[in-house]
Amino acid sequence: MRKFKVGDREIFSKTLTETDIYGFAGISGDFNPIHVNRIEAEKSRFGRQVCHGMLVASLISAGIGMKLPGPGAIYLEQNLKFLKPVFVGDTVTAQVEVASVDADRLALITTVVNHEGELVISGDARVMVSDG
Amino acid sequence: MRKFKVGDREIFSKTLTETDIYGFAGISGDFNPIHVNRIEAEKSRFGRQVCHGMLVASLISAGIGMKLPGPGAIYLEQNLKFLKPVFVGDTVTAQVEVASVDADRLALITTVVNHEGELVISGDARVMVSDG
Amino acid sequence: MRKFKVGDREIFSKTLTETDIYGFAGISGDFNPIHVNRIEAEKSRFGRQVCHGMLVASLISAGIGMKLPGPGAIYLEQNLKFLKPVFVGDTVTAQVEVASVDADRLALITTVVNHEGELVISGDARVMVSDG
Amino acid sequence: MRKFKVGDREIFSKTLTETDIYGFAGISGDFNPIHVNRIEAEKSRFGRQVCHGMLVASLISAGIGMKLPGPGAIYLEQNLKFLKPVFVGDTVTAQVEVASVDADRLALITTVVNHEGELVISGDARVMVSDG
Repeated sequence: MRKFKVGDREIFSKTLTETDIYGFAGISGDFNPIHVNRIEAEKSRFGRQVCHGMLVASLISAGIGMKLPGPGAIYLEQNLKFLKPVFVGDTVTAQVEVASVDADRLALITTVVNHEGELVISGDARVMVSDG
Repeated sequence: MRKFKVGDREIFSKTLTETDIYGFAGISGDFNPIHVNRIEAEKSRFGRQVCHGMLVASLISAGIGMKLPGPGAIYLEQNLKFLKPVFVGDTVTAQVEVASVDADRLALITTVVNHEGELVISGDARVMVSDG
Repeated sequence: MRKFKVGDREIFSKTLTETDIYGFAGISGDFNPIHVNRIEAEKSRFGRQVCHGMLVASLISAGIGMKLPGPGAIYLEQNLKFLKPVFVGDTVTAQVEVASVDADRLALITTVVNHEGELVISGDARVMVSDG
Repeated sequence: MRKFKVGDREIFSKTLTETDIYGFAGISGDFNPIHVNRIEAEKSRFGRQVCHGMLVASLISAGIGMKLPGPGAIYLEQNLKFLKPVFVGDTVTAQVEVASVDADRLALITTVVNHEGELVISGDARVMVSDG
């Protein structure tokens, strides 16, 4: 097993587009008007179409599954607080950072920020590192 | 605002297919071999391709955004424990149940079971109910 | 069987995007330039890309299969008149309304309106309600 | 305008796969369990997952928009009777045949048969032929 230490950190970032939102709605079944109805979204408190919170959070999954710890990661737990809306066209960066290491288990601090540096999701995760 | 009371419950269910996993990988960027590499997955402890935990959890988002509380729901928090793997072809049911009501805030118990009735994700959520 | 009565009504709405049109073209095989060729569409009488009529009509299927009568619905008949073009970016609302009930058969009035309230599809459907 | 005469006939055929059904569910919003829940579908009168009727019917749109009359076609009307279920993996052929010609309007007989030659959808359409 690759060695991990507290403070190790990786990011994954992406601009979230209409294609992402519509694809995610089609997979998850979540067609809440705030996401897929431009007229309703404009009348809402947010003023325009908002990305699904779980879509934004799914970039954390990429950080974990691709980089830290990467292939072999087994997701045990993910806690999420949705702090600010992410709009269609926003560029977000998920960051995964090792908070503690216990044998083959890692505790991770998981966050997502938007392109203005605002924290949009805070949270933490626990993963197991497997060799196969 | 529609009235909600403790014990109100809704479900959303779906068979998760290869199409879902590949779509979710393409949106999230999580190409962990356990999900999209059949050869690696067969050599792993699971023996075959496993759905992304966050993909399975996204059905909870449909239950919340479409049914309980439905349109107007604003996601504040989601906590998830991934208890068992979900394989390609498994049929899963997300259930959302009201645990407490406090003005315009709902605490929800959120679970996902597979078609054998096994709990695959446990967790809870907090949402705000908005009229727009 | 759940009870239905004349005048029961449900809606399903969505903004139709480029993602929807390209996805629908890829599934149906209908690559008519009016839908997927911006240059040809701009030279046509409509002046821009038009959504497939059957794509717009497919939202009626969501209203029927998800809400009225919902799961257990078996589609027997659907008649459609395409009255006005729907453009990429338009937000449309499909409405399903019970016109008559005869044992396990429902006659439905099925319409789609755009975000300016204009009727874009008129029609009617017949469905059977099954318990499995 | 190209000349059309009564009896002109074109077909469009395709094997409908899980990808088609899941894509169509994601675009239309129709996640009726008979289409996307294998367990529920197996318990239903059909015994397995059934394609959305409007998905099958959308191949008629390809016959009209691509071949008869082809590009320049403007869909005015489509009437559909769903006679038999189409299952995932079935190969279906949509046929469009000219029933009458009146200036720039065509009346069409539109059918879909499965690979065993059984009529699964009967119906008729009206289209206008435009030069742009």
